[in-house]
Amino acid sequence: MKAVRVMNAVRGERLHGLLETLADFGGLAGGGMNRQALSAEDFDARAWLIEQARHIGCQVWTDACANLFIRRDGLEDLPPVMTGSHIDTQPNGGRYDGCYGVMAGLECLLALHDQNLRTRRPIELVVWTNEEGSRFSPGAMGSSAFVEPQRMSAYRDSRDADGISVAQALDAHAERFVDLPLREKIAAHAFVELHIEQGPVLERAEVPLGVVSGIQGVRWYQIRCQGASAHAGTTPMDMRRDAMLQATRCLPAIEALAERLAGAEQRLTFGRWQVKPNSINTVAGDVTFSIDFRHADPAVLEAFDAELPNCLPEGAELQPLFSHPPVAFEAGIIEVLQQAADATGEASLSLRSGAFHDAMYLATHCPTGMLFVPSRDGISHNPKEYTESSQLEAGARALAWSLVQLAEQA
Amino acid sequence: MKAVRVMNAVRGERLHGLLETLADFGGLAGGGMNRQALSAEDFDARAWLIEQARHIGCQVWTDACANLFIRRDGLEDLPPVMTGSHIDTQPNGGRYDGCYGVMAGLECLLALHDQNLRTRRPIELVVWTNEEGSRFSPGAMGSSAFVEPQRMSAYRDSRDADGISVAQALDAHAERFVDLPLREKIAAHAFVELHIEQGPVLERAEVPLGVVSGIQGVRWYQIRCQGASAHAGTTPMDMRRDAMLQATRCLPAIEALAERLAGAEQRLTFGRWQVKPNSINTVAGDVTFSIDFRHADPAVLEAFDAELPNCLPEGAELQPLFSHPPVAFEAGIIEVLQQAADATGEASLSLRSGAFHDAMYLATHCPTGMLFVPSRDGISHNPKEYTESSQLEAGARALAWSLVQLAEQA
Repeated sequence: MKAVRVMNAVRGERLHGLLETLADFGGLAGGGMNRQALSAEDFDARAWLIEQARHIGCQVWTDACANLFIRRDGLEDLPPVMTGSHIDTQPNGGRYDGCYGVMAGLECLLALHDQNLRTRRPIELVVWTNEEGSRFSPGAMGSSAFVEPQRMSAYRDSRDADGISVAQALDAHAERFVDLPLREKIAAHAFVELHIEQGPVLERAEVPLGVVSGIQGVRWYQIRCQGASAHAGTTPMDMRRDAMLQATRCLPAIEALAERLAGAEQRLTFGRWQVKPNSINTVAGDVTFSIDFRHADPAVLEAFDAELPNCLPEGAELQPLFSHPPVAFEAGIIEVLQQAADATGEASLSLRSGAFHDAMYLATHCPTGMLFVPSRDGISHNPKEYTESSQLEAGARALAWSLVQLAEQA
Repeated sequence: MKAVRVMNAVRGERLHGLLETLADFGGLAGGGMNRQALSAEDFDARAWLIEQARHIGCQVWTDACANLFIRRDGLEDLPPVMTGSHIDTQPNGGRYDGCYGVMAGLECLLALHDQNLRTRRPIELVVWTNEEGSRFSPGAMGSSAFVEPQRMSAYRDSRDADGISVAQALDAHAERFVDLPLREKIAAHAFVELHIEQGPVLERAEVPLGVVSGIQGVRWYQIRCQGASAHAGTTPMDMRRDAMLQATRCLPAIEALAERLAGAEQRLTFGRWQVKPNSINTVAGDVTFSIDFRHADPAVLEAFDAELPNCLPEGAELQPLFSHPPVAFEAGIIEVLQQAADATGEASLSLRSGAFHDAMYLATHCPTGMLFVPSRDGISHNPKEYTESSQLEAGARALAWSLVQLAEQA
């Protein structure tokens, strides 16, 4: 069986080497990574990747958002099976977030090449541009522009901290890669993204593989409580309007709401706070804080939207900042990915993605699924990001099995 | 009676003019003040003040901390009755904080001069250097150095944001005021400081004069809660260590402790917060916040010290930042100040100072008391700081009565 042959041709040491080489582009002194989307480091990494791809006979295209498509032709000219992720990083990020999915995809192409084996459908490895969103806003720019090309006109105006626009960065990309042909949006048979979990669930379960059922929906809100800044020594308690007390006293009600709606499935975070004037001896007059609430069920998210205002103090301002509906991956893909995990002989479990991924947008375009490997201590977006070699290899083997299996489908 | 004569010679319009003139030194476009201690603006204001003082036959000295002493001689060479405050301001402060006490003191000297009247003891108007502490740390530098001259060696090394030391600023002062004789610490018969309340108590009671019973003691603490920063989407609630929840959940226990120990007399403020990494989609891993607790009773402050650790989450770090014991003003001075308030014919009430003042240090040197006038909306350290002219005049009249009465004492 082709899928097993390719799976067994995956070489963990080679994958490790690919990840090491990629980490040379934008590596920082302390072990972290800084490879911003469409930066010089990103371009150098892409040039290296294109060279590897062409060396094994793959074709390479780009598109209007500088996504990179690396195709190993199939026996028939059918819509391809796609895999991939991103290689841009957080400003002091790790070596695995995104990069692992791309390097494991390349390892699968190398294994196919080693076996001199053709699948029925083409297999395409994709590098999606600016997933992190740390240079240009919004994140997942490349994948969302691929599925909805009309987004590009707005994206081109987005600017980084130095005032450079996406349009200018794309011009620089075109100049660097003059020989790369441009391609329009194409149909795809399936998209599979392999990624580190970026959470602690697989590690706690001591399981090396996760088959992802979908991606939680999210609500971001900003709450502003206004009081009156006043002298901490001279203002009696009954004459104060302490904005920090207003804000902190409403948290238990918001927690109780999330608990009632979602129980153990809730994800509720009050992560960002701005306290003014933020002085030891001054009562806070103005406090702003964020709410990040996530759940897989759209009805729960809507109920949270509806009931949140009742939890807030009188006069508090509630501003929705961002919202994304939950994504449920396609049952057929989930089934293949579960079979792939089983084929590796490793234990696996089904879990939901708490983080966003390019697969969130691809799911609106073609049957889509994701595989996870563990993140040590659940840490990501950090130089300490780490996954054991055996787990990285297990993920790549499962990916190889699934890509070949899907590419053999009619 | 001399005290009544001088009180009635106080002229509200002239006092208003003195405050206006002083506000020209370091006045800002928006109506605020920026006259930092030992700055060019401060020097210009001092030069003007010295000129006014000499014009009415007063002697002027300075000392090792550039405090300014303006003496109207008495009939006998006894320790003087001192009054005064400070003329340095916050970076965008008001026109009354400190300045009012100094200008009202000058108005009293002018009234004495107008009446051609000598008191038994000398009366000295003092300008204390760097009370605000906004240029050099600590505040109340001049008054604390006056009562404890050995503090100067440490103070001289304190530097402002531009790296200029107190020693350098004092050299500049000596250069500008070459002709000012230096004086050592002297004994004083009494010290009376007239100041704006900087709180809302007098305004709420609709009373123009406050006789201050003492100054609250204060405790400043910093609490640090450490958790683990984690992805808001991927980290299940039972696997989180959310430092912001640790911090906010302990506030009610601290509030309950303050309530139990101090009831309506408590002053409890959680004014300064630092949340790391302070990102919407990241669980806070490290939160630091401040506690400002004040009370007039040393036993209450000590009980708070003792019980506070029991209110904190396990592992929280408690760091005392600053502490000052309560000050109870001398009964004899309070009595004279109450008589002075009554002599004006205005209503008055007894209240405690929530803010620190130079009088806090003078109280360790000689019998000391304070008079307050209302602050509109309780606002201070702000261009909106305001006291009505009639209230400013009432305060100056009470000051005049009390200074003369004290200066007549044997």
